Amino acid sequence: MELEKTFNISLSEIANLIDAQLIINSHFDDKYKVSGLATLSNADNTKISFLSNNRYKNDLLTTSAAAVILLAENAKDCPSACLIHENPYLAYAKLSKIFDITPKPQMSIDSGSFVSQSAKLGANVTVCVGAVIMDDVVIGDNTFIGPNCVIEKKASLGNDVKLTSNVVINHSVQIKNNVNIQSGAIIGSDGFGYAPTGIDNNDRLWEKINHSGTVIIGNRVEIGANTTIDRGALGDTTISDDVIIDNQVHIAHNVCIGRGTAIAGCTGIAGSVIIGENCRIAGGVGITGHLSIASGVTILSMTRVNNSISEPGVYASGTVMQSADDWRKNVIRFKNLDNLYDRVKKIEDR
Amino acid sequence: MELEKTFNISLSEIANLIDAQLIINSHFDDKYKVSGLATLSNADNTKISFLSNNRYKNDLLTTSAAAVILLAENAKDCPSACLIHENPYLAYAKLSKIFDITPKPQMSIDSGSFVSQSAKLGANVTVCVGAVIMDDVVIGDNTFIGPNCVIEKKASLGNDVKLTSNVVINHSVQIKNNVNIQSGAIIGSDGFGYAPTGIDNNDRLWEKINHSGTVIIGNRVEIGANTTIDRGALGDTTISDDVIIDNQVHIAHNVCIGRGTAIAGCTGIAGSVIIGENCRIAGGVGITGHLSIASGVTILSMTRVNNSISEPGVYASGTVMQSADDWRKNVIRFKNLDNLYDRVKKIEDR
Amino acid sequence: MELEKTFNISLSEIANLIDAQLIINSHFDDKYKVSGLATLSNADNTKISFLSNNRYKNDLLTTSAAAVILLAENAKDCPSACLIHENPYLAYAKLSKIFDITPKPQMSIDSGSFVSQSAKLGANVTVCVGAVIMDDVVIGDNTFIGPNCVIEKKASLGNDVKLTSNVVINHSVQIKNNVNIQSGAIIGSDGFGYAPTGIDNNDRLWEKINHSGTVIIGNRVEIGANTTIDRGALGDTTISDDVIIDNQVHIAHNVCIGRGTAIAGCTGIAGSVIIGENCRIAGGVGITGHLSIASGVTILSMTRVNNSISEPGVYASGTVMQSADDWRKNVIRFKNLDNLYDRVKKIEDR
Repeated sequence: MELEKTFNISLSEIANLIDAQLIINSHFDDKYKVSGLATLSNADNTKISFLSNNRYKNDLLTTSAAAVILLAENAKDCPSACLIHENPYLAYAKLSKIFDITPKPQMSIDSGSFVSQSAKLGANVTVCVGAVIMDDVVIGDNTFIGPNCVIEKKASLGNDVKLTSNVVINHSVQIKNNVNIQSGAIIGSDGFGYAPTGIDNNDRLWEKINHSGTVIIGNRVEIGANTTIDRGALGDTTISDDVIIDNQVHIAHNVCIGRGTAIAGCTGIAGSVIIGENCRIAGGVGITGHLSIASGVTILSMTRVNNSISEPGVYASGTVMQSADDWRKNVIRFKNLDNLYDRVKKIEDR
Repeated sequence: MELEKTFNISLSEIANLIDAQLIINSHFDDKYKVSGLATLSNADNTKISFLSNNRYKNDLLTTSAAAVILLAENAKDCPSACLIHENPYLAYAKLSKIFDITPKPQMSIDSGSFVSQSAKLGANVTVCVGAVIMDDVVIGDNTFIGPNCVIEKKASLGNDVKLTSNVVINHSVQIKNNVNIQSGAIIGSDGFGYAPTGIDNNDRLWEKINHSGTVIIGNRVEIGANTTIDRGALGDTTISDDVIIDNQVHIAHNVCIGRGTAIAGCTGIAGSVIIGENCRIAGGVGITGHLSIASGVTILSMTRVNNSISEPGVYASGTVMQSADDWRKNVIRFKNLDNLYDRVKKIEDR
Repeated sequence: MELEKTFNISLSEIANLIDAQLIINSHFDDKYKVSGLATLSNADNTKISFLSNNRYKNDLLTTSAAAVILLAENAKDCPSACLIHENPYLAYAKLSKIFDITPKPQMSIDSGSFVSQSAKLGANVTVCVGAVIMDDVVIGDNTFIGPNCVIEKKASLGNDVKLTSNVVINHSVQIKNNVNIQSGAIIGSDGFGYAPTGIDNNDRLWEKINHSGTVIIGNRVEIGANTTIDRGALGDTTISDDVIIDNQVHIAHNVCIGRGTAIAGCTGIAGSVIIGENCRIAGGVGITGHLSIASGVTILSMTRVNNSISEPGVYASGTVMQSADDWRKNVIRFKNLDNLYDRVKKIEDR
């Protein structure tokens, strides 16, 4: 059992750690010690906070935090010590790792796990109780396999990979280094590929496509809880380096996602879609099969992507929320919008 | 192994159990015994049925049920004995527990489970085979941990909690009393929080935010299969008492949900959203981050909630279904709806 | 450990296996041997490819494949040997099984699994490490239970069923023959059924409905990763023969799905919906409770199905994607579309 961590870091040490300029004030000098992070409204004088979203600017005026990470232009409104930084959110992200209280693994193979004799494990690997490592699996150094995870035959994981709990890596999947996979994610399930057999066959209406491809996950990829990524039918499903994927995302067979792209929760991407680099795909988006999305594209939430996108930019579909009484009147008119158009045209032609 | 339950309860006993007024008829007297519940159309004369949805009113006229739970106003259309109740659906819900055939656990710690020596378990706790209880976990009385569930370090569960199978409770999550969590749900995964590092950094495009908050689940909360609830980044994700959540719902970091709110399947709620009490959120709804929803709000299915809602009421977005041929004509006109508006205005101005 | 399979099959053998007409050319004769399948653009001269989607017709002209499965009408554009078939996609599906490299199970009960003494297992059953088979479960011949799957009490599985990894079959669920269930799927969770107790009750705002029904899965059904299917409240949830279901689909209590229907990823179907035979339901569709959908219906992606459908045909809702700048102008006009309609009518009436 590890000890409970206690933190005690001075403001000047923090300024050094995140490369910020410290401006102290009457209450808190540079030797003043803090013990953690909190939001502007929740912080007391033992905590550091940050301002990166203008939505919370009013909270700055009344914060009790010992110090706030912020842009130089906001320093004048800060009642506490200031940690001036050009990217407060990034500085906060770095600082959050210093105040990390996540329990740390013990780097051992638990006797209640199952590890095949033909599996090859690197140095300092953790395999928790209930985890299953099947034949011919290869695992790199410092990798953590959480409780009740399953790594099927011939899968390979690189160094510094972390699978939290109940993650499934299906057979032959390849995962590179520094990858985090949250609980319940499934990597390498069969794609949804079936050929109709034709109506004259009474035995079987669908012929399943055998999926001989796999999934390849690049470096520093993040995958959320209960997300599923299907293996390729022919060729592989490919997730490039630095892609981040939220919870409950569905990525179908043979999808390719370019470097640095972010995909928010509940989005579904159909088979053989190709997505470029540094795209931002919001939550609940649906992308139809076989489309291509250029690099640098942003797609707003719940958009139905029914065509390829060849130019960077922001895209959307759907309508915006209103009271259901108003909405009901409008959707009735939408059902005959083409007719309304014709009527306007007729008036114009008169 | 428990015995197969057989039921044999008289109509007058049932009237007492659910506090209904029994009106017998020529076929079934008050000592007539029934053995279970069924729908109006499926029930035979050994079963009780109920009418709570007017959609099924025609089925009442021809039901073979021994007795029907219904409003007084519907008694005249009932060919069987009547169990008059002011809330037939609630009476049915109570009766459904009496006819429960769900296999009951054996209140023991299975030798094929793993329970850390530092975990503290209450009285009559069941831990099924394959379940993992890690260090410093606290579990209350009468709680049931199903097969292959994982309870990570320092999590706490109250009394009368039930986790079905393959549920994951991540580290430090707090769950109160009388909570039901269906199979495959993940409570306490990391939120989707990453700071872009800026384009000049070739090593890493995203800096992960360490999530130091947790998830707090209130009393009598119900959570569906494969639902995911992320832990807070700073501060906690909070699900209040009596909240009911369906399958495959995604609740992001730092969301707060007020007492009694119901959330149907496939809904996604982005980070830091605050939802009031007694809301009804239908299936497939998407709620954008950082919004506030007042108490008493109803949101229709598949609505894109893109603004905060400050007044109780019913809200919606999207359009309604029609034949694809008509729909294709209308969506083309929608793409230029603003232009159509301008043309109408021009005509008016003439 | 099985040997790595190596394939070496001549073009004439392949023509026989899939019942195609072989047309050789100067480079590849009928004794030429191939070792696998690939897409038109990725295939080298050791591979077979196929053309079934006109989207990839240009790739045919330049393919390096040894032979291509295609319609007779496309043979003239093929630089390689031709395997003429009237249904190239079906022929490819059949051939994909011949080149199958999925690791095969060893047909044994792993000593690290848990099998109740009251469970009845057929011949050649595989139960992998970590799998849990509870009391009174019945399993047919040649069925495969992957690692960390849970089969709860009284469930029954037929012959040739395959559960990949971490699948949960809740109590009393019935599964017929030749069914494939991908990792993380949950079959038989409780439905989302709760009766409001009324506002005067401070103890409990919702009374849970006990679900006494189960789930019945027909023959040759396919179920995707992390899909959830709820058990019936009264009566059963029923999935007929030859239904295919993709990943992350949510099927609520008492839904009935007719033979041969296909349901793509992220679709949600609310309680008591009845769907006919041979329907095609695309991804991200939402179907409101208690509706009926006729046989032969196709529903386009992300459609909000808010009414029953009594006629075969294609149905849709929503709008199509455009640039967010244009979209924002149009959605504002949509919010007052009924008013625009009235204004047009007023002009017409002048």
